[in-house]
Amino acid sequence: MTGTTHSEMIVFTHATIITQDCQRTIWLDATIVTKRDRIIAIGKTSQLVGDGNALPSNARLVDCSGRIITPGLVNTHAHAAQSLLRGLAEDMPLHSWLCDAVWPLEAQFSGKDGYVAAKLTIAEMLKSGTTCFLEAMLTHRTGFENVARAVEEMGIRACLGKLVKATDPNLKDGLPDPRDIDAQQMSMNAMLAAHAKHHESCGGRLRTWVALGTPRGSAEAAYHAIGDICERNSLGITMHCAEAPKDRIIYHEAYGCSPVEFCKRTKLIGPGRKAVLAHMVNLDLETDLALLRETGATVSHNPASNCKLGSGIAAVPQMLEAGVHVALGTDGAPCNNTYDMFREMRLAGLLHSGVHNQAGILPAEDLLAMATIRGAEALGLDKEIGSLEVGKKADFVILDVTTLGCAPFDSEQILDGGFDPVTAVVYSCTGANVASVVVDGQILVENRALVGVSEQSIILDANAAIQRIRKRSSCHTASLRNYK
Amino acid sequence: MTGTTHSEMIVFTHATIITQDCQRTIWLDATIVTKRDRIIAIGKTSQLVGDGNALPSNARLVDCSGRIITPGLVNTHAHAAQSLLRGLAEDMPLHSWLCDAVWPLEAQFSGKDGYVAAKLTIAEMLKSGTTCFLEAMLTHRTGFENVARAVEEMGIRACLGKLVKATDPNLKDGLPDPRDIDAQQMSMNAMLAAHAKHHESCGGRLRTWVALGTPRGSAEAAYHAIGDICERNSLGITMHCAEAPKDRIIYHEAYGCSPVEFCKRTKLIGPGRKAVLAHMVNLDLETDLALLRETGATVSHNPASNCKLGSGIAAVPQMLEAGVHVALGTDGAPCNNTYDMFREMRLAGLLHSGVHNQAGILPAEDLLAMATIRGAEALGLDKEIGSLEVGKKADFVILDVTTLGCAPFDSEQILDGGFDPVTAVVYSCTGANVASVVVDGQILVENRALVGVSEQSIILDANAAIQRIRKRSSCHTASLRNYK
Repeated sequence: MTGTTHSEMIVFTHATIITQDCQRTIWLDATIVTKRDRIIAIGKTSQLVGDGNALPSNARLVDCSGRIITPGLVNTHAHAAQSLLRGLAEDMPLHSWLCDAVWPLEAQFSGKDGYVAAKLTIAEMLKSGTTCFLEAMLTHRTGFENVARAVEEMGIRACLGKLVKATDPNLKDGLPDPRDIDAQQMSMNAMLAAHAKHHESCGGRLRTWVALGTPRGSAEAAYHAIGDICERNSLGITMHCAEAPKDRIIYHEAYGCSPVEFCKRTKLIGPGRKAVLAHMVNLDLETDLALLRETGATVSHNPASNCKLGSGIAAVPQMLEAGVHVALGTDGAPCNNTYDMFREMRLAGLLHSGVHNQAGILPAEDLLAMATIRGAEALGLDKEIGSLEVGKKADFVILDVTTLGCAPFDSEQILDGGFDPVTAVVYSCTGANVASVVVDGQILVENRALVGVSEQSIILDANAAIQRIRKRSSCHTASLRNYK
Repeated sequence: MTGTTHSEMIVFTHATIITQDCQRTIWLDATIVTKRDRIIAIGKTSQLVGDGNALPSNARLVDCSGRIITPGLVNTHAHAAQSLLRGLAEDMPLHSWLCDAVWPLEAQFSGKDGYVAAKLTIAEMLKSGTTCFLEAMLTHRTGFENVARAVEEMGIRACLGKLVKATDPNLKDGLPDPRDIDAQQMSMNAMLAAHAKHHESCGGRLRTWVALGTPRGSAEAAYHAIGDICERNSLGITMHCAEAPKDRIIYHEAYGCSPVEFCKRTKLIGPGRKAVLAHMVNLDLETDLALLRETGATVSHNPASNCKLGSGIAAVPQMLEAGVHVALGTDGAPCNNTYDMFREMRLAGLLHSGVHNQAGILPAEDLLAMATIRGAEALGLDKEIGSLEVGKKADFVILDVTTLGCAPFDSEQILDGGFDPVTAVVYSCTGANVASVVVDGQILVENRALVGVSEQSIILDANAAIQRIRKRSSCHTASLRNYK
């Protein structure tokens, strides 16, 4: 998978290191040392690799002069198989986007399509600095095995949410979902079997989670049963919740309660539980913010997707004010067009300042936290990842900020009142600034290229797969453009 | 400046060409031929470079297989000298952002600082696909000559707005502006002298415009005098207008009218005039939309800047519905952090869909038009640039879409209902996808690098310049971060 061996010590020198530790320490002209999968030292370069500190002969030195190192980004809401659908469901509101494009296409995945798709998504994520993601909903046709294999081979860290569907999905408020032909594969039993097989596989990089769609009229008891099993087995749950305005209406009409009340009373969320509720755009704020704080559930904020599908804009400043945990996620390619978490941080910052007429309502430091340590907390992995500290896993990103678009960032001027590194990362960088990426101590991206992986074959395989999927599906979004 | 000679014919083959012509023609597997500064042919590659069409022996062939060609992007609101201030005025609302950071720093530019800054800005613009910009406000200390020299050397096309300040700037509603020490240099006479010297210089690439700040209590007669001179001399005017909520209040309290009423009655705008009003966030919509349509003024929409400074969100869908001309601009680096027009297109699309709860309220095709042909119209240059048509200037961008983040875009699948090129450009690309850029028939960027220009010296010069400027200014935005 990479050119480094697992026992090797790697010494990354002369970087500006944004640790995201509790003190939000930023090291200047600093060095980070990894051994196997762990960080074993962080400190001033002069102290760690000075004269008195001879390095072991097999230590590898990586000069990071002029570069910024941040913790690997954590994407808390991503659909690994949807990269193939990029650009195929444009300018449609959520419910027709699902029924007329995304679901019919997903129902036509077969064989290795899910593997091809996941490799593309993971490759894009790694190259744009994401080292861990929460898969929001793996459907049966995608193939859990396919995605687990891609995670194994590509070296990323992942929590894979396997879709569990409540029974009787076709009540009056339901939307027709062609994926229901596989209903028996989407039971809790199927999920528990996958959990037994895959949880903590890939050397601990892969975890299995339960993934749920937003309730659209199925019996509440079915959700309660899922909540019970998850609580008993300490399973992480991620759920689409209160995304479109209509979703909130369904909660009230079908269940007589607010979105978060529903999650609480069905035991999908609760204190001590791992729960990530995605979107959360159309809530009853008066009721729901307090319940979110009480239950400790994390909101995965997905601004690009919510905007693009016309769902609205989540009340993130109010959530933070109320003490709710908020992390960031990109959602899938058909409603974002990118898995680049740098673009998501920047968008979140701009969007809420604009909507609330308040500059800096989400400071750059908080945006970076939402994309790193807050994401790790959401996944219950903050003891291992999310910040750069001795003893934690070596998951980090090395950013090239010696570009025109980052100038005049200059590490020599930082202490003197110059352009600070957190602003450079959040507001100037995109995934294209990522020079190298380390996950679990392995260098997976180096000099802007995936190590030992052919981008071109990933792309060619993806192009062939989506052509087959489109042919099999009845979904043809006829283009009205004037082609010659 | 470049490796090509001006008489050479260049043949760009096998591209997907988004022309932005009146029929919005998109050519598949197509070729564009340039000679000197003009486009001399566009059509199917098979016809233009087929067997029967022997090319002249000195013609240069550029294979653009798998690439998308679009017209060069037009940035209708940019501050060329502000790239040096990137990251130095973060999370501040507009008026303290101006008074406590941007103006004090701008007042300390001296000597070649404006040249260094403009080279950095133009280099970033070119590398991210912008081929023409409207400078929003060149202050005296920046030096008109400095920026004109950078335009000459770098090969970009520009309309340079020279700041003209109305007299008596320090009435009660005014903000203290340290740049006023150069008041006599900011008169209409000084502007007319610059116009006589520079207008249509650089082989026609440079135009001079009048640039105005938003009125903050200066006598209306002073604006009327400017409006009269501009009308008599057919000068283009660009003006900051109705940016922050307080700006709208000033129009009402100081002049007893709405923002656009003020512009109309002082003759700053009017039918047949070239006028670009930037920001336009805080308008009296009932009055102002009709006046904008009547006068034909263009609104330069600057979503990143308006959001970042907490100014709000312009009513762009309502403007378009009312028949108002709208183009796009990035504003300067201290309130956007980038001059990347691709990020601005995407943000505009996402923002308005989110705010209006309506997917696709600004379709991708319209966003691309706002960044190309609508921008050219705003500058009165649409006979020459803004779309790719035979006879027009050769100003265009070649995008590498063979990247993970654009997959599975595949030119072979377009006609078959696959991922369309306009969506790929607007929603997946950033400036980092720009492979090559042609302005006035000259290849200025090739294989992602500036031709004949050292990026590194531009960056080093910029770092040194801002260090000097910060030392001279009394402006120290002390960083509260925990550096070690």
